[in-house]
Order: sequence, then C-alpha cells, then structure tokens
Amino acid sequence: MILKNDLLLRAAKGEYTERIPVWLMRQAGRILPEYRAVRASLSGFKELVETPERAAEVTIQPVDILGVDAAIIFSDILVVAEGMGLTYEMEEKKGPFFPKTIESIEDIKKLRIGTAENDFGYTIEAIRITKKVLDGRVPLIGFAGAPFTLLCYMVEGGGSKTFSKSKKLLFSESAAAHLLLQKITDSTIDYLKGQVAAGADLVQVFDSWAGILSPQAYEEFSIPYLKQIADAIDNVPVTLFGKGAFFARKSMAELNCQVLGTDWNMDPKETRQIVGPNITLQGNLDPCVLYGSHQFIEEQTNSMIKSFGSQRYIANLGHGVYPDTDPLKVKHFVETVQSFDIRTLN
Amino acid sequence: MILKNDLLLRAAKGEYTERIPVWLMRQAGRILPEYRAVRASLSGFKELVETPERAAEVTIQPVDILGVDAAIIFSDILVVAEGMGLTYEMEEKKGPFFPKTIESIEDIKKLRIGTAENDFGYTIEAIRITKKVLDGRVPLIGFAGAPFTLLCYMVEGGGSKTFSKSKKLLFSESAAAHLLLQKITDSTIDYLKGQVAAGADLVQVFDSWAGILSPQAYEEFSIPYLKQIADAIDNVPVTLFGKGAFFARKSMAELNCQVLGTDWNMDPKETRQIVGPNITLQGNLDPCVLYGSHQFIEEQTNSMIKSFGSQRYIANLGHGVYPDTDPLKVKHFVETVQSFDIRTLN
Repeated sequence: MILKNDLLLRAAKGEYTERIPVWLMRQAGRILPEYRAVRASLSGFKELVETPERAAEVTIQPVDILGVDAAIIFSDILVVAEGMGLTYEMEEKKGPFFPKTIESIEDIKKLRIGTAENDFGYTIEAIRITKKVLDGRVPLIGFAGAPFTLLCYMVEGGGSKTFSKSKKLLFSESAAAHLLLQKITDSTIDYLKGQVAAGADLVQVFDSWAGILSPQAYEEFSIPYLKQIADAIDNVPVTLFGKGAFFARKSMAELNCQVLGTDWNMDPKETRQIVGPNITLQGNLDPCVLYGSHQFIEEQTNSMIKSFGSQRYIANLGHGVYPDTDPLKVKHFVETVQSFDIRTLN
Repeated sequence: MILKNDLLLRAAKGEYTERIPVWLMRQAGRILPEYRAVRASLSGFKELVETPERAAEVTIQPVDILGVDAAIIFSDILVVAEGMGLTYEMEEKKGPFFPKTIESIEDIKKLRIGTAENDFGYTIEAIRITKKVLDGRVPLIGFAGAPFTLLCYMVEGGGSKTFSKSKKLLFSESAAAHLLLQKITDSTIDYLKGQVAAGADLVQVFDSWAGILSPQAYEEFSIPYLKQIADAIDNVPVTLFGKGAFFARKSMAELNCQVLGTDWNMDPKETRQIVGPNITLQGNLDPCVLYGSHQFIEEQTNSMIKSFGSQRYIANLGHGVYPDTDPLKVKHFVETVQSFDIRTLN
C-alpha cells in the first residue's frame, strides 16, 4: 500500500523531507478524552491492549485528533514479559507492575521464549486492523522495550529509585542476567518480526532505564542485545531510544539502526557531532514544555528545530507525553513543527 | 590547626598527593549500626540534625569505623528551606518532605532569608564541636543543596517522577522561580559562610536534581546561582556536584570552584577532556557496585582509578551510599582506594 504521507519514513531513510515529520511518544492514550472514553467502556488497560479492534481505534485517534505524521500501535512494553510467562498488572496511578518478580536463575530458566504467533497475537492482529483502517494515511510504528529495560521491570516488579535488585543481579550474578537478557532478546525479535510482517512500517526499541547504568555496564548489558535486535530487523527502519543514555550515543548509532531517539538532556548539535551525518535523529522536547503558554511552546519548539536542522530529523518529545498535558497544547506543538518553514534554515 | 591527613585538601587545591583520598557521600548515617543506635536514642532524624553534640558524633563515626579521609557534617540539604520558613519532616522509608509546599509567588514572598546566626545555629555549632573532637585527624566538609534542587523540593514537597510542578513554575512563571532561587541562594551563601567560619575546610554544593533539566534550562535556572555561591566562598575549596548534569560539566568547571563531582554515567576520561587539567574531579563509582563481591568491588574501583588518574582526583561514589549497603563492603572500597599504588599509573 502506498503511503499518502510518508514523511516519517523518508526522514528515517535519510531522504529529503520538504517539512519536518512529528509524532509523540505515548500519543496513543493517556491525554485524550476520546481514549479515556474507550478505556472506560472496557475492564481496564489490559483488556484494551488485548482487544485488537479497540487497540487499533485508540492507535488511530491521535492521527485524527492531533494530526501527527505517524501512528504508533497501542500496547505496552511489558507484553513481552507476559508472553514469556511473567504476568503484569496495571493499576491506575501506580502504572504497570509484576506481582511476581524474577528472583533467581530458576525463575529465569522457567521463562519461555515468547513468539508472535503464540503469545503476542493480539498486538499483531491490532497492527493488521490499524493498517487497514489507516488506509495509508500515515506510517504505523511498531515497538518493544529493550531487553535491559525489561530485565529491570521483571526483577524490580516496577519502577525503582535505585534499581538495587536489578543491579545486584547484573553485578553479582552476571551469567543469570545474560541468560535473562538473551531470552528477552529472542522473544523481542520474534515479536518485532511479527509486527513488521503484519504491516509495521518502522519499529522503535525503548530502553527506558538506560540512564541507570555506567557506560561500561551499558556496553555489557544492553548494547549487545540492541545489536541483535537491530541486525534481525532488516526490512524496515529501526529507531533506538535510550532514555538517559547520552554516553552511548556513539555506540548506539553504530548499530544497524536508522534513527536515534534523544532526550532533552542531550544537546542536538552535540549529538549530531557525536553520531555523524548518516543517521536520523529524533526528539527531544522536554514534555514539561507543554505545560507552558502557546508562545513558550512555539519558542522552545522552534529553537529545538534550529538546533537539529530540517533534514534527517523527526520531531518528538524527549520522553512520553505526561498524562496531565492539555491536548490543545499537544496540538499546538504538532502544528508548530508542521508549519515550520525549513527554507528559513541554512 | 594543622591537619594530620590533608590529602583531600591537597587534591582539591591541585597539589601532589602520594595516595588518593577517599570519602563517600552519605557516609555519615544510614549504613552504620553505630549511627542507628544514636538515632534510636533520639526522637528521630530532625532531633539528631538539631542536636550539635550528637550530629558531631555521627559525623565522626565513619572516620573511626570506615577510615575515610574526610568527615562531612551530618545534616540535610532541606535545613536551608526550614531556615527560610518552610518546615520539613522526615519519615522512615519515605525520606524528607514538606507538608506545606510553595504554590504561588505569595508563598515565595513570605519566605525570609535564612542566616547562619539566626536559623542554622545547630549545624554551625555541630561543626565547631566536630572540629574540636576531630582534632585535625581529617578535613571536615560542609555542604548545602544547590538552589535549583531546593526549589524542586520546596515546590514538589519531596521527590517526583516528572517534576511537573517545579517545571510548571520555571516554564510559566519564571520571574517567581528566579525570585525563589535568589532567596535560596542568599540564604545558602550565609549558611555556607557560617560553616566555613566555624571550621569547615571545604564545602560541597549538591545539585541532586540537575539531571531533570535541558542544557538551556540549566544555564538559566541553576548555573547563575551556583556561580554566586562559588564566588562568595573564597577562602576554602568549593566542590560542585550536579547529579545527571553531564551536559553542564564545562559550565560548572568554569565557575569559581576547585572540584567537580561526577556520577557514574560520566566517563572519567571524557570528563577530564571536557573540563581541562585545572580542576580536581571527584567520584564516581555506581553505589550498586558495593552490592557485588569484594573482588568485583576491587576490579571496578581499580578500573575507576585508572580512568581518573592519581592526581587532582578524590575517590567517591557517584551518588550517596545506599542505606542497605554492607559497611564491610564500604570499608573494602575505602581500603582498595587507599592501597592503590599510584606508581603503577603512568
């Protein structure tokens, strides 16, 4: 199917874009009243994730309502852990968590390798439906969590202030950690391949907890698994995003990926200098900027664009949009990017 | 009084040190059973902070028990806010928090400028006592929170996942934010000058939440206030530590400070390249390394030292030691640094 708006894909592939494509991490869900209406009609978050028709519906909402240049499939990074046999739950306010966590190598050995066919069917079907309903209006992004981030969730049970349990595993039982990382990686590759086969035009891997590691530990516990994933997905562009992984920008950019996601701590010009010209950058507005006035949003967005430049660039936030953000401000951000006249840049 | 062990001061001033000095952020308190015994004999954390004899006692404990090369006065960064009229409380597990937070410019206008004489007398007295009891064994470090970090605590009430409230203030009421930052800065300068007058041999400013800002926002909301503080303290060395502020290393090093603290995300060699040769570096072991085996701690510590080099360097963790760390492992870290033969380095 030919895409009517393929700006995102062209930017990802390094082709010329006459204007800058824009989407937001976490755009599907949370901020839109239309999303909350759908969710309220179901038993909760998990039923929504596991009901393909409804997941497709909320995936498309931001394309209709916010006018973004891409859809991203509605799901959660924890589905991979669930596909491996570790069930997650979702609580309002608290977020997703695992009632039972990984505590020993025996727990790790019990986990299975999840497959698209047997374990992630609902997301794969949601992608098929979304592609059909989108009818080529914009590209559809598939995604998964990075193995290191999944390990943290599976060991801690949820977020953490110090990630002591995860790091105890890495630093005192590294063989067990690597076994778990490999099982997650194998599951993730099958999952992402399934997403691409079902129609995902691009995939993004989120390493949300990258920032808790030292550069050396990241090279040992995350980069090798990101490499396996990037190498395995060879027919659509791959975006790697490591929140807080400023120290790994060069390593990540050298993997077989087309786009590097950046957060607002990372100076765009410095990032470009570090990674060189042959990769597309994505990001990186502080989500809290969207709490400011329309004028403030414009100033900050335009300043960001001037730092990134108009080519090999996909505008986004530097993290998922926060739940209490006014959708009108999100729309103003989207429109500010889309109305930016790239001829004003050198 | 002449110091018997002045390694820390010599390192801070850029003088030759025949071995590497070492101390740990949060070494006073938390991890030591001897500390918990003192605390249990009082009504709680605040009584300990506000009882000079006992604060001095727990300040000196890690010098006796762990053999560190410096003492750091036992206190809390929130005392400055309390001295300005905003009372904090301390709850086991939860940590310190403000029952009433700053919500408007009126709240900010009501705050007073805290002074060493009127508002921080208990810490000043604790420093006097500590100096007397220490009797020159090791230098004593005074400290305060950075104005930006204090603002975050005073606005959020405690820690936060997104720091939305603080950033709403910065991004939509920046004049109010600057007024608050200036009042905190004025209070902090008087407090630190009082600490130095009472005998602190070096002072450290902790910008614990630096990492939540973009480089531009940090230049606007933190650097100018750190500059005022660094300029005001001119008779003892000043250490600036911005957790997560990798992007501000150059800006911070250019201030009137002698030591830059670094966390474990920051590669030592890269940091040295960014800041140049004329400043001392401090840090940066991941506190979680101390969960590993003695052998692992040695490997990681020696590798860290090799990256920093033996001169203009103070060994430390990259963050405060975590409460559940085994004191024997802390001691092993200290001894590993102290037994490192610097002649093995080029």
